[in-house]
Amino acid sequence: MSRLLQDAVSEFAKLPGIGRRTALRLAMHLLKMDTDAVEQMTDTLARYRREIRHCESCNNLSDSELCPICADEERDHSTICVVEQVGDLMSIENTRQYRGLYHVLGGVISPMQGIGPSDLKIDMLVEKVAAGKVKEVILAISTSVEGETTLFYIMNRLKQFPSVKVTNIARGIGFGDELEYVDELTITHALHNRREVE
Amino acid sequence: MSRLLQDAVSEFAKLPGIGRRTALRLAMHLLKMDTDAVEQMTDTLARYRREIRHCESCNNLSDSELCPICADEERDHSTICVVEQVGDLMSIENTRQYRGLYHVLGGVISPMQGIGPSDLKIDMLVEKVAAGKVKEVILAISTSVEGETTLFYIMNRLKQFPSVKVTNIARGIGFGDELEYVDELTITHALHNRREVE
Repeated sequence: MSRLLQDAVSEFAKLPGIGRRTALRLAMHLLKMDTDAVEQMTDTLARYRREIRHCESCNNLSDSELCPICADEERDHSTICVVEQVGDLMSIENTRQYRGLYHVLGGVISPMQGIGPSDLKIDMLVEKVAAGKVKEVILAISTSVEGETTLFYIMNRLKQFPSVKVTNIARGIGFGDELEYVDELTITHALHNRREVE
Repeated sequence: MSRLLQDAVSEFAKLPGIGRRTALRLAMHLLKMDTDAVEQMTDTLARYRREIRHCESCNNLSDSELCPICADEERDHSTICVVEQVGDLMSIENTRQYRGLYHVLGGVISPMQGIGPSDLKIDMLVEKVAAGKVKEVILAISTSVEGETTLFYIMNRLKQFPSVKVTNIARGIGFGDELEYVDELTITHALHNRREVE
């Protein structure tokens, strides 16, 4: 087998969720693309890895010191939504319903994986809140055991700022979910937090 | 959203079977890799696309004029196994049971997709057989309608060389296949080509 092809397959197979069979299919696909298009792809990916940085205010991925969200003066700088990772931020941005800022933790506390509070951008969040301009911190962290641990840890750290409102995104039955298949914990939450129909 | 990230996601999403969600996951994964490892990946892929070529004898992917198989004097140069594509060649090589050479057609005849005999490396095969050293041509082409058309076309072209044996790989029940789920055509073939137990 061609060494060039073998090497290409090995590189593709380093990516998560891509086995050798898929890697071979991707390598074959590159041959159907123009050489220029492949160069553009590889240059773009290398440049992305080399030049991407984290926003110095919120830890979002950014092309410059401040990400476009933190740099946007029209957004509400007194509200911070705390998320685990950049993908979560994007999901919220896609709703176009939120006009505040974000804070990306970079993960959740997980003793099993050796991730403690100091491995996450929690101090950075506390410092930002300590600066005094923040009125509300919305916690949008997953409901896993690790997520709940992280949530309580952050809530404890923020207790020193009694004037700052700390909220948690609502848990309940998702739109389109069939009750029959929803887990008991979610149904319990949804019942408990029921609202009067207006 | 960061332009660098957006561009990286768009490039990944150009690959077959990779949607925007997977592309984002892959882009995030690149950040977990060392910059050097990413450069090595992108350099390898770009070099592969730029430098890979087709074997001038069998149309297999190759690093040089002749692929390692055609260049191997220890292999049986009088037997040619005709396959549709490089992936098929690899599957046969993986069995380590075949010691002859190959010929990669580059597809099958498909009027629906505008692929005629001249779009495939059939003339190249006929010329190789005409050179007089080939004793057997094994056709290992898929059993689709297009595959069968291609098979009959090649058989017709090779009729001018009566001394060359043309064979077709056996069709039958695969190892591990449950008879209950095998299609009728395959069962019919398997019954028809039954062999006495030795």
